[in-house]
Formats: sequence, C-alpha cells, structure tokens
Amino acid sequence: MNVLNVGIASFLPGLASSGAGFTALDWRPPARGNARLAFKAARLLADERVDRANAEAFRRMTVSRPVLLGVDLVRRCIPGLHDPQRRVLLHAGPPLAWARASGPLRGALLGAVLWEGWAQSADEAEALLAGGGVELEPCHHRGAVGPMAGVTSPSMPVWIVADPGTGRRAFCNFNEGLGKVLRFGAHDAEVLERLSWMAKVLFPALEAALAARGPLELRPLMARALHMGDELHNRNGAATALFTRALAPGLLQARIPQEVQLALLDRLSVNDHFFLNLSMAACKLAADAAAGVPGSTLCTAMARNGTEFGVQLSGLPGRWFTAPAPEVEGLFFAGYRPTDAARDLGDSAITETVGLGGMSLAAAPAIVRFVGGSATSALEGTGRMYAICEGEHPEFTIPALDFRGAPTGIDARRVVDLNRPPTINTGIAHRLAGIGQIGAGITAAPLECFEQALDAMEVPPGASTPGSSGRVTGS
Amino acid sequence: MNVLNVGIASFLPGLASSGAGFTALDWRPPARGNARLAFKAARLLADERVDRANAEAFRRMTVSRPVLLGVDLVRRCIPGLHDPQRRVLLHAGPPLAWARASGPLRGALLGAVLWEGWAQSADEAEALLAGGGVELEPCHHRGAVGPMAGVTSPSMPVWIVADPGTGRRAFCNFNEGLGKVLRFGAHDAEVLERLSWMAKVLFPALEAALAARGPLELRPLMARALHMGDELHNRNGAATALFTRALAPGLLQARIPQEVQLALLDRLSVNDHFFLNLSMAACKLAADAAAGVPGSTLCTAMARNGTEFGVQLSGLPGRWFTAPAPEVEGLFFAGYRPTDAARDLGDSAITETVGLGGMSLAAAPAIVRFVGGSATSALEGTGRMYAICEGEHPEFTIPALDFRGAPTGIDARRVVDLNRPPTINTGIAHRLAGIGQIGAGITAAPLECFEQALDAMEVPPGASTPGSSGRVTGS
Repeated sequence: MNVLNVGIASFLPGLASSGAGFTALDWRPPARGNARLAFKAARLLADERVDRANAEAFRRMTVSRPVLLGVDLVRRCIPGLHDPQRRVLLHAGPPLAWARASGPLRGALLGAVLWEGWAQSADEAEALLAGGGVELEPCHHRGAVGPMAGVTSPSMPVWIVADPGTGRRAFCNFNEGLGKVLRFGAHDAEVLERLSWMAKVLFPALEAALAARGPLELRPLMARALHMGDELHNRNGAATALFTRALAPGLLQARIPQEVQLALLDRLSVNDHFFLNLSMAACKLAADAAAGVPGSTLCTAMARNGTEFGVQLSGLPGRWFTAPAPEVEGLFFAGYRPTDAARDLGDSAITETVGLGGMSLAAAPAIVRFVGGSATSALEGTGRMYAICEGEHPEFTIPALDFRGAPTGIDARRVVDLNRPPTINTGIAHRLAGIGQIGAGITAAPLECFEQALDAMEVPPGASTPGSSGRVTGS
Repeated sequence: MNVLNVGIASFLPGLASSGAGFTALDWRPPARGNARLAFKAARLLADERVDRANAEAFRRMTVSRPVLLGVDLVRRCIPGLHDPQRRVLLHAGPPLAWARASGPLRGALLGAVLWEGWAQSADEAEALLAGGGVELEPCHHRGAVGPMAGVTSPSMPVWIVADPGTGRRAFCNFNEGLGKVLRFGAHDAEVLERLSWMAKVLFPALEAALAARGPLELRPLMARALHMGDELHNRNGAATALFTRALAPGLLQARIPQEVQLALLDRLSVNDHFFLNLSMAACKLAADAAAGVPGSTLCTAMARNGTEFGVQLSGLPGRWFTAPAPEVEGLFFAGYRPTDAARDLGDSAITETVGLGGMSLAAAPAIVRFVGGSATSALEGTGRMYAICEGEHPEFTIPALDFRGAPTGIDARRVVDLNRPPTINTGIAHRLAGIGQIGAGITAAPLECFEQALDAMEVPPGASTPGSSGRVTGS
C-alpha cells in the first residue's frame, strides 16, 4: 500500500507505524482553511488591476535611490517633533501604550526619559511614563525606523537619507553596538553615557566628515555589500567597511580634533553593525515610496514593538494589521536560554520588507554562525521567498543564486494563498528591562497580520471571478 | 542493453547513436596510464612515512602567521640584491632566459629596464636584455612573489611580511591596478609614471602610515575576507576594504601631506586588487614554511613565467618541475578574444598553493562574473579539490560549505593518482608585449609537472608495497 498524506499531521504516527509506504506533503489549504479569505486571495490573485497596482508599487520600491545627506538632531530634522515643550518618544513597531509594553521596550523608554533629563530616577521615569507624561509614537509615523526597541528621543542624532528624485526623507538613529545597549532595553549609566558620547562626539564628527565628503549614494554600496556576504540586517560587516572607506577622505579633511577622528574610526572598526541603521533608513525610504498605490497588496511595513507584530499594505496606507509578536529561534550568548528571550522586536524588518535581511539569507551564508541554520538552509530559505514576492530586485543581486535579484515586494495575496510568511532574522533581547541583547535568530512574520490585511482590502468592483484556485499552491 | 563506458571517449558517439542505454564515467587510469608512475604513486600513498612528512608540512603551512611589518625598497630589504652595480630583475615563475620569454614577460622586463634607467629606449633595453646585460632570477628564489610577469626591480618598493615565530620573511611588490600595467606587459610612459608615483609617493605614505600603526596581523583579516566573498587571488575587494579600515588610523596620524593621505585613500578605494600582493606575500610565507620536509609530497610552489608552469614539492626543495604553461579559459574585456591571450603567467598561484584562489572558489561566488563559471560550478570546483589535498585549513574557512576549511596542502601523490590537477584562477595578459590585461579566467596546473615531480621523489627504503591501487579513485 502507498499513501499520500496531504497536510494532516495527526495521521502521520499511524501511517508510520502501519508499515505502509507513505509520502507526507506539508500542505495546508489556502488561508489556513478560512474559505472566505482563501476565495478572496484567489480573486485578488486573478485580478489584473491588482497585478498592475503591485507592479507599480514594486517599481517605486526598487527605483528608490537612497542618498545619505547628513546627520542632525531629531528635534531639528524630523517633522512634527520640533516643539521643545513636547515630551515625545518614538518607538519601534505599531502603536503601543506603556501598560502593554514588553520588558525591553520599557527599559529603553525608561533610559530615554532619564537621558533626556525628564526624570531623575528610574522610579520617577516609570511614574512619568505610566502616568502618560510622555507621548509615545511609532517611528514609522514620522518617516523613521529604529532597530529593536527603536526608542528615539528629541535630543538624539539621526541619519538623514533622502531620494533626490522625490525629495522624500527617512531617518534612523545611530547604532550603539551589541550587548548592553538601549535598543535592547538596557539603561544603566554606561548605556546613557554612550548615548551622550554619540550625541556630543560622534554626531559632530560625522557631521563634519559628511559635510567635507558630500552626499553618499547608498544603493551601490549596499548592492556591493550583498556581494560580500552581508544581507544588510544582521550582517553589515562589508557595508560598514565600505562605508568607512567612503567616509575616510571626508573624515581626514574634517576640521575636528585628531582624537575625535581616531575615535570615529575606532567605532567603525569595532562595530560591524554600524551600517545597519543606514541600511534601515535606506529601506524605509524604499518602502515609503511604494506606499499608497491604490489596490496594491504589496507589504510596505513589517515592524514589531515586542508585544505586537504589525504589517501595512501599499493599498491601505497608514493602517496597521497586528498579531502577537512571535518568538525567535536562534543562538543565544553564553549564559542565556530561550526562556530568557523577549518576543520579536524592532523596525529592522523594514529590511525584509524590501527584500533584504531574512529574505536574502542566501547572500550571507556566514550569518548562520550568528542566527543559526546552515548554508544550505540559507540558500533554500531565500529560494522559498520568491513565491510570495512580486519580483526580483534589479540592483540587489545574490551571487550564490547566480546573481538572481533579491526576492522583493512581499505580496499579501501570495502569503495568504500559500500560508507562507516572510522570513525575518533579528536580534534577541532579554525579556526583562535593563539587560540587553542575549542572542540573534530567525523568525517569521505572523500569517494573521497578512490575513487581516487582505481581509481589509476592498476588491474593486468588476473583478474577475477565478476558478477554484487562482494560483497553483507551491513554489 | 545497458553499457557502462569507463573513460573511453571514442566509444561515446557510437554508443549514443546505437540507441542503447549507456552511462559514461569520466575516468582515466592513474598517472594517465603510466603504469610505473601509477605504481609509484600508489606505493607512496601507502607509505605512512610520507603521510607523516605531509602532515608535518601541512602543519607548518597552516600555522604560519603572516604579519605585515612594513615596506621597503627591493635593494634595501631583499637578501642578495643589495649590490647597486648589479643589474638584476626578478620575474614570475621558474627560471627563464630572455630568448624563451613570452610577450607579456618581455614587455614587463623592457619596462623595468627603462624605468631603472638602464636603457633610454625600448630598442636599447631589448638589446641589453637579449645580450645578457641584465641578470634574470625568479622571484621565488629570493623569498619573493610577483603577480603576472612579476617583474620586480631594485628600485621598486615591496611589502615585507614576516612570521614572528620563525623570523622568516616574504616580499611582494605593490599592485598597480588593472588594465595597462607593467605586470601584464605594458610599459609605456603612463605605466612607468605610475611606477614612479608608487615609489615616490605611495611608498613613503605607506611607510609612514604603517610606522604609525605598527605591525598588522594578516591572517585574521584574510580569514574574515574569505567570509566576505573574497578568495584572495582574483577577488580581494573585502580584504582591501578591511585593510583600508585597519590602515586608516595610522594614515591619519602619519606626518605626511594631506594630499598624499587622500591620494593613498583614493588608491585603496579604486583598486580592489590592492590587497592581492599582500595575500601573495602571506601565502609565500606559508608555502616556504612548509618547504624542505624530507619525504613530503606536498606542493610548496606553483608558478608560471608565461612559457612554463613550474611546481616544487616540499621534499625536493628548490627543484622546479616544469611543463608548457597552459591556456586560460575565461572572460575577455571588450574587444579581445581567446586568440589574443598569452599563456598562464604569474606567481599568484602561490595562493592556490596554500588553499586559496581557485582552490576556494566556493568562498567567492561573485567571482564568476570576473573569471567565468557559475555559483554552482564554484561550489563543485572547491568540493573536487579536497580529494587532492592533505587537509582543511584550520583558520581559512568557507561559509557556503558550512565553514569547512579551505582544501589545503596539494599532495602530488593524489594529483597523479586521480589525474586531478589543482584549479587556478588568474588574470589573462595579451600575448604581445606592451598591451596589458585583456581578461581573467580559470585554468588548471599541468599534470605533467606533478608527474615529473613525483617521479623524482625518492621512495625511502622499506616502503610497504600496496595492492593494485593504494587509493580508491574518485572523490
């Protein structure tokens, strides 16, 4: 007897013990069995108007040209945050109130309140936050992104990345390095002192070096880093080295003290994640460019606040579709265990949103030492992402796939139809406030977010009606 | 009917047209059918004393610790070349007289004679060289290596790489960039002016920067570059960027004019092959460390002068085994064709000699755009090299092979037994003097060199006698 078991896991033990030959196919019905949504996904997949909208969103996303213009303080450059009387903190992910915030997000908010001088002790800071004395806003709502907790306060410096074609801007704070840092929820004196050093020393040094150098095109640098083993989310060593090389002449000519020049070079040398925040700003620019195409089911934001995972679609601009933030499988630093881990956190999934990071693991086989897996699983992982994407990035190519473009433009129709969520790789924060990073790993966006988002899409009148399935399930 | 055809190519057309099912196995008898040599290879493969000698040579090769000490002029630092009255030029590959030199080697020798001021015109230079007025010596005989023509003259600056453990030193000239350059046989005014700039501007700038910086450990940098898509022969972009980052603090502190600092940074930025010559010096140090282990059949030099390909074995130190230099299959710059190409040239196969370059193509999938092939062929190519190597490099690992060590320590016994030559990737020079680089590609060391070398190995008395074959043929 030979049996083909299609997706019914509960039959497997019986089959295995029966002695019969069997093949198990890991299959679930579209939309995980929600027939109404499966039908809607199929209908949208068969609708050429959606195809055209997605092609346009994909085009906007992939022609985006990120240029590093300079650096400035949040309150001087991010629209809406100029009022010095306003106590506002930006944070990662979809909107969230203090009461529901996770440990690492709370830790980072506490640290920022202390660092801004809005409170003199952690208790005072907590009371202020719990009492609503500080406004909380997603970075995403201000054209910004922030890794992990993403907490960005008015006195912090940020990168300014702009597209000269559209004038659009995106912002991201500076990278603090790994370990006990604010973005992973740590907030002791060492952490706050580093923030002060970044604002008082690093910021003016970068400002002077960039002014001497002039604007820096980020896309060729990022394309090159993808050919050098980076995926530009959790691996940025090549991009950081290339950025150092690009910045060095400006740094040399900047009229700043030599010890400051050396300190900046040292920082660029010891922190291989330095470029992450530039990658994120460049990706935010591309994602924002793709937002707002009517009828498009392409994803233009994936972001996590440690409590919830949120997704936005191009055709439903500004609306978040959320689900509980997932857990992360990964490698832990010595002394930590999976039970110590916070849930998935950060705006850094903006890299996956435009085809990098976990979508392009195949470009970065060495990353498996940091996030787990094998070189083969990295290749296969990227291979599986093409089926849920609109296309292949024309500039960001992957040598190990013979220069195939990165899988770009996550299409909610396909995610739902195939039950295949985008792969995300990420850092892992301790679940308690104040500790910091304890590892890095791989996770997947919750299908629920994409299902909700697709459910909310209006089907334009006159859409053609597909047959029983608008698309063959499988890659 | 089903036929298994083992290695007899002439049968294949008949089989194919017969309609019979058949499988063709690409097999040749050991030592390409030379029964005496095949038996000797088998006997040496079964000899544990050779195994022990090879293990020792492998150990010495892989523990070698290359440290960049500094730079100096050839006549001041290379032993035996101090006499200012001596007119001597070093060149790539095994020994060679002018009369038998290939076009690009002649072009480079002419250029060096002109640049040293030993002649005032190309005709005068040619007469001097043809008349024996300039001594020619292989770089390898002076602890040096040079890419392509490898022509190194007394007034040129060189890198000095040393192993602090043994005091051993290795030397290599500076990289000129691609295209119309001396090492590819070009020698017009532009080429000679660049040589002067390198000696008068680049050399003192590097000297000052390295003095301010202090010695630089090359092995961690090279190991890292292998994780960033370099194979450290034809792809050195990551290593050059990492080297720039490592050098920048010293350059900043060097008391040299700012325009010189900027010129050096610019050179490091535009020439991604800059690190090649450092990689070569580091590899020469490792290969020399492995030379001279009695009874060892490991290869310690592969080098080409454009006419001949030469190989040395550890157990036969200083002896060259040569065969005609092979042709190179590759990609040509616009306007050039395979018939324009010179034969394989250069000491850069020292990188393959210690496990890098063509042996580690799997580390550098992006290189296929430069030398041809596909990402899959790069993976497979490296996979096939393990069978002819003593072991896997403990520090140089390949992410795409799940961090397997680079195939290192080419064993002449195995090369001959399996008829499997080491893969080499290389630049391609025009066959005529004076033109320069016209492409890059892949070739293989001639089996003949390894056969001759193995033939010359003395079998120690008392060696055990193997059965019909000491080793299963196949990987």
